[in-house]
Amino acid sequence: MKVLVLNGPNINFLGIREKNIYGTVNYENLCSYIKENAERLHIDVDIKQSNIEGELINIIQDAYQKYDYIVINPGAYTHYSIALFDAIKSVSIPTIEVHISNIHSREEFRRKSVTAPACKGQLCGFGIYGYIMALEAICSGLE
Amino acid sequence: MKVLVLNGPNINFLGIREKNIYGTVNYENLCSYIKENAERLHIDVDIKQSNIEGELINIIQDAYQKYDYIVINPGAYTHYSIALFDAIKSVSIPTIEVHISNIHSREEFRRKSVTAPACKGQLCGFGIYGYIMALEAICSGLE
Amino acid sequence: MKVLVLNGPNINFLGIREKNIYGTVNYENLCSYIKENAERLHIDVDIKQSNIEGELINIIQDAYQKYDYIVINPGAYTHYSIALFDAIKSVSIPTIEVHISNIHSREEFRRKSVTAPACKGQLCGFGIYGYIMALEAICSGLE
Amino acid sequence: MKVLVLNGPNINFLGIREKNIYGTVNYENLCSYIKENAERLHIDVDIKQSNIEGELINIIQDAYQKYDYIVINPGAYTHYSIALFDAIKSVSIPTIEVHISNIHSREEFRRKSVTAPACKGQLCGFGIYGYIMALEAICSGLE
Amino acid sequence: MKVLVLNGPNINFLGIREKNIYGTVNYENLCSYIKENAERLHIDVDIKQSNIEGELINIIQDAYQKYDYIVINPGAYTHYSIALFDAIKSVSIPTIEVHISNIHSREEFRRKSVTAPACKGQLCGFGIYGYIMALEAICSGLE
Amino acid sequence: MKVLVLNGPNINFLGIREKNIYGTVNYENLCSYIKENAERLHIDVDIKQSNIEGELINIIQDAYQKYDYIVINPGAYTHYSIALFDAIKSVSIPTIEVHISNIHSREEFRRKSVTAPACKGQLCGFGIYGYIMALEAICSGLE
Amino acid sequence: MKVLVLNGPNINFLGIREKNIYGTVNYENLCSYIKENAERLHIDVDIKQSNIEGELINIIQDAYQKYDYIVINPGAYTHYSIALFDAIKSVSIPTIEVHISNIHSREEFRRKSVTAPACKGQLCGFGIYGYIMALEAICSGLE
Amino acid sequence: MKVLVLNGPNINFLGIREKNIYGTVNYENLCSYIKENAERLHIDVDIKQSNIEGELINIIQDAYQKYDYIVINPGAYTHYSIALFDAIKSVSIPTIEVHISNIHSREEFRRKSVTAPACKGQLCGFGIYGYIMALEAICSGLE
Amino acid sequence: MKVLVLNGPNINFLGIREKNIYGTVNYENLCSYIKENAERLHIDVDIKQSNIEGELINIIQDAYQKYDYIVINPGAYTHYSIALFDAIKSVSIPTIEVHISNIHSREEFRRKSVTAPACKGQLCGFGIYGYIMALEAICSGLE
Amino acid sequence: MKVLVLNGPNINFLGIREKNIYGTVNYENLCSYIKENAERLHIDVDIKQSNIEGELINIIQDAYQKYDYIVINPGAYTHYSIALFDAIKSVSIPTIEVHISNIHSREEFRRKSVTAPACKGQLCGFGIYGYIMALEAICSGLE
Amino acid sequence: MKVLVLNGPNINFLGIREKNIYGTVNYENLCSYIKENAERLHIDVDIKQSNIEGELINIIQDAYQKYDYIVINPGAYTHYSIALFDAIKSVSIPTIEVHISNIHSREEFRRKSVTAPACKGQLCGFGIYGYIMALEAICSGLE
Amino acid sequence: MKVLVLNGPNINFLGIREKNIYGTVNYENLCSYIKENAERLHIDVDIKQSNIEGELINIIQDAYQKYDYIVINPGAYTHYSIALFDAIKSVSIPTIEVHISNIHSREEFRRKSVTAPACKGQLCGFGIYGYIMALEAICSGLE
Repeated sequence: MKVLVLNGPNINFLGIREKNIYGTVNYENLCSYIKENAERLHIDVDIKQSNIEGELINIIQDAYQKYDYIVINPGAYTHYSIALFDAIKSVSIPTIEVHISNIHSREEFRRKSVTAPACKGQLCGFGIYGYIMALEAICSGLE
Repeated sequence: MKVLVLNGPNINFLGIREKNIYGTVNYENLCSYIKENAERLHIDVDIKQSNIEGELINIIQDAYQKYDYIVINPGAYTHYSIALFDAIKSVSIPTIEVHISNIHSREEFRRKSVTAPACKGQLCGFGIYGYIMALEAICSGLE
Repeated sequence: MKVLVLNGPNINFLGIREKNIYGTVNYENLCSYIKENAERLHIDVDIKQSNIEGELINIIQDAYQKYDYIVINPGAYTHYSIALFDAIKSVSIPTIEVHISNIHSREEFRRKSVTAPACKGQLCGFGIYGYIMALEAICSGLE
Repeated sequence: MKVLVLNGPNINFLGIREKNIYGTVNYENLCSYIKENAERLHIDVDIKQSNIEGELINIIQDAYQKYDYIVINPGAYTHYSIALFDAIKSVSIPTIEVHISNIHSREEFRRKSVTAPACKGQLCGFGIYGYIMALEAICSGLE
Repeated sequence: MKVLVLNGPNINFLGIREKNIYGTVNYENLCSYIKENAERLHIDVDIKQSNIEGELINIIQDAYQKYDYIVINPGAYTHYSIALFDAIKSVSIPTIEVHISNIHSREEFRRKSVTAPACKGQLCGFGIYGYIMALEAICSGLE
Repeated sequence: MKVLVLNGPNINFLGIREKNIYGTVNYENLCSYIKENAERLHIDVDIKQSNIEGELINIIQDAYQKYDYIVINPGAYTHYSIALFDAIKSVSIPTIEVHISNIHSREEFRRKSVTAPACKGQLCGFGIYGYIMALEAICSGLE
Repeated sequence: MKVLVLNGPNINFLGIREKNIYGTVNYENLCSYIKENAERLHIDVDIKQSNIEGELINIIQDAYQKYDYIVINPGAYTHYSIALFDAIKSVSIPTIEVHISNIHSREEFRRKSVTAPACKGQLCGFGIYGYIMALEAICSGLE
Repeated sequence: MKVLVLNGPNINFLGIREKNIYGTVNYENLCSYIKENAERLHIDVDIKQSNIEGELINIIQDAYQKYDYIVINPGAYTHYSIALFDAIKSVSIPTIEVHISNIHSREEFRRKSVTAPACKGQLCGFGIYGYIMALEAICSGLE
Repeated sequence: MKVLVLNGPNINFLGIREKNIYGTVNYENLCSYIKENAERLHIDVDIKQSNIEGELINIIQDAYQKYDYIVINPGAYTHYSIALFDAIKSVSIPTIEVHISNIHSREEFRRKSVTAPACKGQLCGFGIYGYIMALEAICSGLE
Repeated sequence: MKVLVLNGPNINFLGIREKNIYGTVNYENLCSYIKENAERLHIDVDIKQSNIEGELINIIQDAYQKYDYIVINPGAYTHYSIALFDAIKSVSIPTIEVHISNIHSREEFRRKSVTAPACKGQLCGFGIYGYIMALEAICSGLE
Repeated sequence: MKVLVLNGPNINFLGIREKNIYGTVNYENLCSYIKENAERLHIDVDIKQSNIEGELINIIQDAYQKYDYIVINPGAYTHYSIALFDAIKSVSIPTIEVHISNIHSREEFRRKSVTAPACKGQLCGFGIYGYIMALEAICSGLE
Repeated sequence: MKVLVLNGPNINFLGIREKNIYGTVNYENLCSYIKENAERLHIDVDIKQSNIEGELINIIQDAYQKYDYIVINPGAYTHYSIALFDAIKSVSIPTIEVHISNIHSREEFRRKSVTAPACKGQLCGFGIYGYIMALEAICSGLE
């Protein structure tokens, strides 16, 4: 099973960025953590990141017919990128949206996800463990 | 570790209710499924359900100092029950909000959760497996 | 043909409550009036009332596979109870929404019905005769 | 007792128009159906139709002191014609608003009736039987 | 100087219609009253009325190059007729909008005039004397 | 008959202020123009002006039982001064609201008058002649 | 003089619940405090609490013709319970709405009270002393 | 192939009306221009115009089973006529909405088309050439 | 203990102003009533009033380090004066907001208080007794 | 005549992406189709595509003084890219906005075009033929 | 070069007022600081302050033809004083709006400036140094 | 002191783009102008520009621990880029937002800055001199 983990803008600044919200683990640690767990779950995982909305779309399009699932943390694009919503719909790959923080207990504008309706499911507020939850959901046979 | 799984209105009609959205598993099956997994995870679980907003609050208050975590599916009350939001805040028990369907891809009014800001995290769209994801998040040491 | 007539909050205060709006007939009179007409129409009617949103849901769930039709006056819950909307959808019993007063000529917040989209039809403004109209619609072979 | 049944825009295309919503009965059938029932109820009925907002107002004004009741289906004008609202108020004839489909389970813009506050009552979702319900309400001594 | 006085829907029901708001003078009296004052002011006046939005537009178009001024009471069309707004703009005849009642102290929806931005000026709340104020404004050399 | 003409903020800068909107006549000219016409109409007129919202209220309160009518141009306070609205209501003196420009064809925020509902009538767009229209309306026996 | 003090959802968790907002006094202390003061004021007081919206309505209906006044803290139901608003209107007992915290300096959604328009008066922000203020207002001959 | 070109309110004042927006070509020229091009494209075209919303509906209904396509410029009715929307839906004739000016670069209220969702396509901003674009689209085999 | 009672616009017209809402007691009576009660409560009270928003701010600033509490009835400024809100915050004197009428059962715009979030508490609907409630709250040791 | 055809995000997934909406023609076919028609029309055409908002701006800037017209399908950026709006305005090249589907009959958020006000005209709903319509409009001497 | 520095409500409480937002420098220090810098820049500066909206207008009107520039900190009036907006427009003196705090990172209502559109430019968030920035902008030949 | 000056979309078209708004100075001139002033102020300045939202984020992230301050003109991204807001927050470098034109006197959508709350301060309307004001603010010891 091939899974693409795709991180959006500023996720690569984990551990530097507002630590009270996002925690102190840095981006390299996050990647290792995901990879270790993927290995444990016998998932073939690739992790990509971009700050550029359109590059995220490029990566999603490149995933077409190559990956079985996508785990996406669209960062701030969650809240306004109709283009990402369209991209996820375009490739017809089951996708799980992950947020590190609880987007419902922060600024009002973070409570609405423009991309979630194109996804299979969404989870938020579980810290970096949220990525593992998504991987395990995939393993459990997310239909 | 003691966990309360609390289901809100109409969840007990699972398997009867709009099957295209909620699936064909019935409520008894859901309860067994949760219990089996809880056992596997060495979680001491109680499952309760009520259609009455205030009874859900009663149950949450009764959980005070008795349970370590709450897993709640507030059903339709998700979208307007400030009283439930207050109840979750009142007992200071870390709580995970679970929805069977993806609330972001249905009617507009289902996209806003009034209760989620009082919770640790929220997940939706994973079918009944979502309850197990919540239990596993608890086991993983949700801080 | 079995019909459940279900009244929501404060309907039981008919004849006491704002008489200029709801009239002077009291709740017992209303029940008798409905029963007499049901008898005339060869309908097997049960009349229930609750002030509790969740009990109304309980009653609707209990009606599942027992009643052919529901006639409901959800009172104030009309305007915000998504849980009632879900309950009506859950049981798949054709339902008629009745309001004694014309909800369109009162406060702005009474003009929107959250529950009506789950119903077969809605009527308002005909006083207590509205209940009889609903029963006769049922007899006429509401498809 | 003289009753005017007044149909607004596109009602005359019944049976042609979106049959899944409005049914397959055509406008001539509707008129016969109303007339037969009116006769049964000893009501002296006239049925008029216009696609023109202002002609509907003309007809309502002509009804002044000639009819005891009006049964109106304002079609799409329901949702924006303040002029019709004023016309109904102007003639002081008790009026019942009828809709064939359940306006609450369709597009958002159909859920608000601009004309209903000027009416005695409103009913919707009962198909063409709704017209007969209105006539029977009139017979029952709608005060 | 030629002036067209144009009345919209339900104005012809003056004296019948909600007398507490519009007064007891009937439409014929209004016309005579306007004509007498026009004569006093040496204005060549024509008074027209229609309940039909598009006929009001027809009349405005017919006025093109025939009248120096228009005095219009668009009735309820004031609040939604962009078509009337366009018509007034199309003919480039200086136009005064008159309302018998004070539109600001009634229902919220009457407070916005869609047509007034196309007019030279607007006045409301002066009863039928408002028409005479408009005529006198014209005589005073409204530039 | 005693009439108070009350001008709000920036009206005293007539002839200096945005001449394309308000014209080139200065404030002294406006006052003379009003006084001459008042004399012609046998009205005993006082003209006052203030830029201070509360002083306008003071002047309105001082008018209590001293003036038969008020002609007010509240300037920009028109659009937000609930305090002025209250003051006009407090003294129960019939009041006419005048605006030099057509407030409906300018910025969106000028289209709503907070004070007009407390007035007998409102007129706008007639330039400084609007004040004379108000005085003549008073003479005509504004009831 | 008989007074019913009625507390809504989560008020019974006083002293446990968000202490920085609601203080450290617990619910038993609150009840004693109210009773002592009622005694001092020669008021015959009953104190009831429920987390269930409909039970609060039941209690209000039971109060009909038994109590002279109601002091109500509707908790979170304040902000959406039209059913409670209707109940207070139904029994025609003068009612005072009390809130422990200042609802205006918290979340935006707490600033609107749906129930207050049915009450005689409202007070908030005085801590538990607010209940005593309500009792003293009743004694002072609240008309 | 039979095509109905239907023009709404004030289109007949082309060449007179706001020339900076709509150009200097008059309505007769527009009709000739359309007819010449229709002939060139071997389209059997009829051109109709009305200022009356309901007459436009009448014309659309008359087109039923007589025309293969409709090209409509609903003028100002574009922005509020749900009745026209219903009419276009009723007849099931593929319809193209044309606007002479770019409705997106004018007043805010012109940016929303109420009628376009009932149409096959919409085009705006191409001047009178837009009608020819619609005809050519029809010829190109608009499916 | 020194307390400043500060009244905003139109409060000085008590007894003259809309008596059905504000009662028949005049402003002098109100002042005496407050003073008598202050004396009884051993409060050193000063009562000031202004119709001018900025003078109310001046008075609040002058109160700085001179008064222990402020009791304010900001009148209509309640609903829009951010400047008053800032002033109350600036002086850090605990302040109680009082309204004679129940602001929740009047016009929609009176339901929002812009100033209350800067206050300790707010009360409304108790008539002039509300001022005494505020004084007693102060005596009771409002912390 | 040199024309730039510029396609935004996900347009390159034509034929893969939601075929019920966008059709089965793939992107290469679209490009050939445009080129063939351009040749027929003696237009020198370049076709570019990017998923990146800012690259679309780069391409538009590069077009400055090189192309006579732009035909743009901004994809999802249509609905929020003020930056694209600014770019089109910056280069002063007459631009036509094309959408393959009818944006008015899909999700509400697709009905508003942020970029169209910077364009000469807009067309939607004609499938890929829409590009040819734009090219023909250019040939017809779009002024 | 003559410059008027004009401060609105509560600015004179600098150093007393919410120090975490506005800093600890008091108003006298601010004035000295401005004057010293003005001297350094060879600007002839006058500094005025008022808490009264209308007095600020008076001061602006007095500035007419006396000052070359105005530097204004309208305090809370920034957010609702259309009258100040009109005053700045009336005198045609180039004006710079200054805010000590960053109005964009505070309450939502502080983010909109009603007065800024009448100004040449606006700056905020630079503490009291913002006044000097405005003076230097003036010196730099603000065109 | 190292300062990064970062320009967003279309700023590089200065001198070409809407000159009545942005002036005639071109982008090279702007860069020289900034550099000369930076030199004068002993600031070590780098100037970068991108039309791509995500590249602006890349540049901001690269600035981390390399620059002491950022001066940013986010162009159109100001109004919707939550991702830029997050990026500025992520690097914790004090940032000043600069706009060449007065964003408050243009289209409504330009009045809200999404990025400003993440900045130290904002200034607009001073033309290209605004960049120098930002640099001088930095020199003045912006804390």
